[in-house]
Amino acid sequence: MTVAKGAKTARPAVSPDSAQARLLALLRDNGPMSLAELGERLDLPRTRLVSEVDTLLASGLIQDKGRAPSRVGRPSTLLALDSAIRYGAIDLGATSIDIEITDGYLEPVAGLSEEVDVKAGPAAILQRITELFADLRRDGAFDRLNAIGIGVPGPVDVEHGMPISPPIMPGWDRYPLRATLEMEFGCPAIVDNDANIMSVGEKYRGIARNVRNYLFVKVGTGIGCGIHIDGRIYRGDNGCAGDIGHIRLDSRGPQCVCGNNGCLEAYFGGSALSRHAEAAARSGTSPYLAARLEAAGVVTARDVGKGAIQRDPVCLRLVRDGGSRLGEVLAGLISFINPSMIVIGGGLAELGNQLLAEVRTVIYQRSIPVATGDLPIVLSELGSRAGVTGAALIASDLLIRQP
Amino acid sequence: MTVAKGAKTARPAVSPDSAQARLLALLRDNGPMSLAELGERLDLPRTRLVSEVDTLLASGLIQDKGRAPSRVGRPSTLLALDSAIRYGAIDLGATSIDIEITDGYLEPVAGLSEEVDVKAGPAAILQRITELFADLRRDGAFDRLNAIGIGVPGPVDVEHGMPISPPIMPGWDRYPLRATLEMEFGCPAIVDNDANIMSVGEKYRGIARNVRNYLFVKVGTGIGCGIHIDGRIYRGDNGCAGDIGHIRLDSRGPQCVCGNNGCLEAYFGGSALSRHAEAAARSGTSPYLAARLEAAGVVTARDVGKGAIQRDPVCLRLVRDGGSRLGEVLAGLISFINPSMIVIGGGLAELGNQLLAEVRTVIYQRSIPVATGDLPIVLSELGSRAGVTGAALIASDLLIRQP
Repeated sequence: MTVAKGAKTARPAVSPDSAQARLLALLRDNGPMSLAELGERLDLPRTRLVSEVDTLLASGLIQDKGRAPSRVGRPSTLLALDSAIRYGAIDLGATSIDIEITDGYLEPVAGLSEEVDVKAGPAAILQRITELFADLRRDGAFDRLNAIGIGVPGPVDVEHGMPISPPIMPGWDRYPLRATLEMEFGCPAIVDNDANIMSVGEKYRGIARNVRNYLFVKVGTGIGCGIHIDGRIYRGDNGCAGDIGHIRLDSRGPQCVCGNNGCLEAYFGGSALSRHAEAAARSGTSPYLAARLEAAGVVTARDVGKGAIQRDPVCLRLVRDGGSRLGEVLAGLISFINPSMIVIGGGLAELGNQLLAEVRTVIYQRSIPVATGDLPIVLSELGSRAGVTGAALIASDLLIRQP
Repeated sequence: MTVAKGAKTARPAVSPDSAQARLLALLRDNGPMSLAELGERLDLPRTRLVSEVDTLLASGLIQDKGRAPSRVGRPSTLLALDSAIRYGAIDLGATSIDIEITDGYLEPVAGLSEEVDVKAGPAAILQRITELFADLRRDGAFDRLNAIGIGVPGPVDVEHGMPISPPIMPGWDRYPLRATLEMEFGCPAIVDNDANIMSVGEKYRGIARNVRNYLFVKVGTGIGCGIHIDGRIYRGDNGCAGDIGHIRLDSRGPQCVCGNNGCLEAYFGGSALSRHAEAAARSGTSPYLAARLEAAGVVTARDVGKGAIQRDPVCLRLVRDGGSRLGEVLAGLISFINPSMIVIGGGLAELGNQLLAEVRTVIYQRSIPVATGDLPIVLSELGSRAGVTGAALIASDLLIRQP
């Protein structure tokens, strides 16, 4: 190692398959490794490896941590990611925002969550994001950010970094979200759909770790789906693949916000459940929900979940009906795409086992048997952290592939 | 070129990315090419290229056709696929079989089609296939086959070369179809689903040539779908992806052969149309169909198509109702997978523009606008030849990648 530590020089953009990118990804995914181990994993001759490592040391992305314990032969150098690397991960939902600052290994350093209304529009939301990051910086979570990843509740043109005709995000259509974040934080940024970042997080560190073809079904205010094909996220021709909330269940069904009738979201999801809960509270059919409404002035999908746990019959029925509708849509998609796993996550995944039981029943009844024979249908392991985990991962990919 | 022409030696199996495989694929896809052109396209040094070409000449797969016209510099050798290469392509449907013998460029040399009933079971069908190939051999279409590809109307375990729980193929479950064909014809064989081979054919030589993410919707006796993602066919976890005929439209709908209610195939497809046509003929609501029934003793989906062209109101309604049901299922799948193109093929694609108009109307009404904005929904360009074209292509891949 011939380079002065701490010197930072620009690094040209590299392909994801380059030795440098693979080396950085190995460190991110495995933690500090010895030069010898890296040489084995990358299958590089020693002189080439040393030269790549020198470049990365010079760029300040990795650190020489001294001698590594050696299994055999001479001791090797231990290499680690620079301890100052910080990613900003943002999971923007319809009614909530979760922010996490992670280190280079995507371990959380600090986090914040609060309720927001995405309908407030990009100016107000970005203002709030900037304030929250300023709080985190003041608390010492980071000095500067190396990259930012954000998920938003609508279709996204990932290449251009902007939401595209997002039905529940008025004012956000083609808003230059990536460019704005890059300007504000002085680092590269990437924008994706919220179900997509959750699916990426769950595949990286959750229950879908070893699965190549899988669906992450996000049940929040709306319903979306992240699709993984052959181990990679699939975004579709316009970046709107997985928009399953407006698949029609019944042409005679209730009106949906999208203008059509009988969409999945007209029956289920946070919006629909809140509506049904309020009706049940006001009509008195559910004393439990009526009490909640009286106490808080409002009832939400969360109240329905709590009521179901307490076995309030109306809440139980709402969860079961919703699960059944979701199961019906998923049954068709499973026959179509024949995945290896279905993961259910998002805010309403806290409806938990009641929801899961109903979804499973309908799917096993309705999909072709060969597609469901050994199909696991499970809840997200990462829960509310799936989104920020995925956002941090796609942010880290930006750093790994670019200077 | 130092190898005696006509000498045939075994060639070890090669990866699809090997120089030999790429060279054979270039010749298959472009026709005869000069050594100089091949060198450019393969980006190989001349000595390496000559050595690969010598191996292929020795194996008898390619032929030296003498001097090629040269654009600049010294003249180059013209190389062609061996003129004796023959592929056997079989498209087995529920009620029909199409066979084509092609040369190494997948150009048809001879073909046969006849009605069969796949329910007759594997022994009878394979007996008939053997007889048909014997006829074709007798007529001089081939001396021996280099590889065979077959599509069947049900889910297939491609790796093991056998149908898996095919609902409309009693007796075929796990029948060792590939092994039987390989034994019978003494060449490698590959088995796939019929919608899949059609989708592969349409992508290779049809309207989907330049499309990376697309759905080929086969409307025959049953309804199936070939799925292409990122330029490659996607078969799903158990090989049954695309089985869309049993997606449920209405839980109160008519009973389906699969035991459930309200499946797409319970409303539309060759089986459903024949049933509806017979009912309309017997009840007298359609004088056109009644006359067909009287004349032929039976009415089929084809009669409905002819009746629609002659603007018989009942036939028109049947086609429109069917198109509308199909459109409803496709609308959901389009929201989910956001493809770049939808191609409609299979036997009932001859219902043509009436069908297409109805499918389009429903899709444009029901899918999310960002997914349908510039989505072409078109009829198969290859028509009844889509299946055999795809079967020949997957057969040729076997030869290209193996001795």
